[in-house]
Amino acid sequence: MDKRIKEHAQIIVDWSTEMKEDDNVVIMAHPEAEELVIALNEEIGKKGAHPTTLYSSNEASRAYLKNFDGEFKTPEHTLKLFEEADAVISIKSDYNEKAMNDVPGEVLSEYSKVRKPLSDLLQDKRTCLTAFPTNAAAQLADMSLRQYQDFVWNAVLRDWQEVHEKQEILKKKMDEAEEVYITGKETELTMSIKGNLGENSDGKFNLPSGEVFTAPIPDSVEGKILFDKPLIYMGREINDVRLKFEEGKVVEHSASSNEGLLSQILETDEGAKRLGELGIGTNRGIKTFTRNMLFDEKMGDTIHLALGRAINRTIGEDGEGNDSAIHMDIIKDMSKGRVEMDGETVMEDGKFIWEME
Amino acid sequence: MDKRIKEHAQIIVDWSTEMKEDDNVVIMAHPEAEELVIALNEEIGKKGAHPTTLYSSNEASRAYLKNFDGEFKTPEHTLKLFEEADAVISIKSDYNEKAMNDVPGEVLSEYSKVRKPLSDLLQDKRTCLTAFPTNAAAQLADMSLRQYQDFVWNAVLRDWQEVHEKQEILKKKMDEAEEVYITGKETELTMSIKGNLGENSDGKFNLPSGEVFTAPIPDSVEGKILFDKPLIYMGREINDVRLKFEEGKVVEHSASSNEGLLSQILETDEGAKRLGELGIGTNRGIKTFTRNMLFDEKMGDTIHLALGRAINRTIGEDGEGNDSAIHMDIIKDMSKGRVEMDGETVMEDGKFIWEME
Repeated sequence: MDKRIKEHAQIIVDWSTEMKEDDNVVIMAHPEAEELVIALNEEIGKKGAHPTTLYSSNEASRAYLKNFDGEFKTPEHTLKLFEEADAVISIKSDYNEKAMNDVPGEVLSEYSKVRKPLSDLLQDKRTCLTAFPTNAAAQLADMSLRQYQDFVWNAVLRDWQEVHEKQEILKKKMDEAEEVYITGKETELTMSIKGNLGENSDGKFNLPSGEVFTAPIPDSVEGKILFDKPLIYMGREINDVRLKFEEGKVVEHSASSNEGLLSQILETDEGAKRLGELGIGTNRGIKTFTRNMLFDEKMGDTIHLALGRAINRTIGEDGEGNDSAIHMDIIKDMSKGRVEMDGETVMEDGKFIWEME
Repeated sequence: MDKRIKEHAQIIVDWSTEMKEDDNVVIMAHPEAEELVIALNEEIGKKGAHPTTLYSSNEASRAYLKNFDGEFKTPEHTLKLFEEADAVISIKSDYNEKAMNDVPGEVLSEYSKVRKPLSDLLQDKRTCLTAFPTNAAAQLADMSLRQYQDFVWNAVLRDWQEVHEKQEILKKKMDEAEEVYITGKETELTMSIKGNLGENSDGKFNLPSGEVFTAPIPDSVEGKILFDKPLIYMGREINDVRLKFEEGKVVEHSASSNEGLLSQILETDEGAKRLGELGIGTNRGIKTFTRNMLFDEKMGDTIHLALGRAINRTIGEDGEGNDSAIHMDIIKDMSKGRVEMDGETVMEDGKFIWEME
């Protein structure tokens, strides 16, 4: 076994989920991640915790969704499993990242609605979303498997304590700031983040991590934005998303590919048309886009906005967050552009406030 | 996809578990069974039921058990998952059937104790234990994969209604009989099955099936028996098991291999030393031993006894069944030997009562 797999498992168990004796643990994995599942079982065993592993498979999900004849509902047995879990580890990995591409958008949208109680539950757990390097993901990233393994583990196996300390500067800005202004190519956007909290994403919930994010006040977003990086939703690429906001709500949208899917996603529920997250990527170990949100959104000179649900941890006592069945991140390259908070530039042309001095 | 995989899935869904709309379903599978998992998702989708799949892996279980440092307990999250399930499908399949061979017997025994509430729960569900043909199982059976696929699907894809009708004769004998006498090589065994019920195993809980079984009255078993077919426990072979019973309890035991493991299993709990099942195999489609209990115990000229837990369905209102954390089947070749019920021969030298006339 590649020794980096063991290190990956140790970070997940020790740092990301802070596993302890008697924890009930859920692992979600596809067979491609078997080696990491084995390594995790070893580390979880050492802690005296109790794992149960769920088998995720795009091909099986497609077979289910394409043939479904009935009414979707939140599966009570799965809900209970998650309710009783203390820690949940989800490992992105599959034989084929495009296997769900012929499932109609409205089916995905209906299905995501009944899964919402599961996502809600997970917000209050120690969770870790990570990825295992597969040929499918390597191919999507235009890389060989060996090259992609280096890419993934370079991004994952980092000193997260050090990342935490650096990001704390940006987190505090977000805690204190009220108004955010974003400008760049075809972009002029303002929003309030008053009363909401910056989240220092330091390898706890996402691995790799390296971003600081907060929740916009749902009704405050005004203006327009072009996302020049692809949005990947259930394996499908939506390119050049353009959104126009009025009183927080998307009033115009377009895309150069899969625009119809984008329209369907926006119709999921009332909250799907509003923003739940403003994130700033800080991970300088991620140097290239790989069509994998977990990595792409962490890249050092990007920002991302998420349509849909706000993350509970970013909603302050005096703040406000959006709710929805979806949480869909869309990325904007900021190698040209500027982010201001209360009039202060925190990021300009790909440089952070702490890199400008 | 081999069309037999689809047929296999259809039998599991339509016949074995009688799946219906809104059922909460748990599938347990190893990646080697991915094709059957996909086919099942298709069939379950058509029914409008809700599946969740658990990932089973001998290698991961080994990593967990070998490194465990703490106190085993029944995992509450997994318990709740099964509590809320209506149907449970378990698919035997792995890369390597021997992967758990270096886990100490006492660890397996401790672990099986805390899993007992899970096994108890499953007794009251619609369940189906089946197998998917893998290279590992083929190798264990001294066959090529293609040859083994034919073997498995010949045993699985049968007219189970017809099997049901034939077996009903033997089931009724068991319902009515009080005393059972078994004689054969190094074997003279008597037991009472008074008040207990014959179970017609017709593809509902086991697939393949083809056996009729009941529960001995726990204290009634007297005599000795030689099991000339190997016992397979968590991948380990125990050969030539000899047991001597007094007042239902094993008072002497030996084996020509892995005798120490047998001793440990017998010490699991009070019920591990008593019998929970007497079964008679009827499946003439299974013509060879393959070191897989699911198939071996169904073979047409064998009987098997299980140490440990009785199956609830075989315990009559006026009867009595054994309880234990274990349920371990051991097989005896009856091509030479006789089974009598209340003095009537129901099986002799490999022929059943309905084959004698």
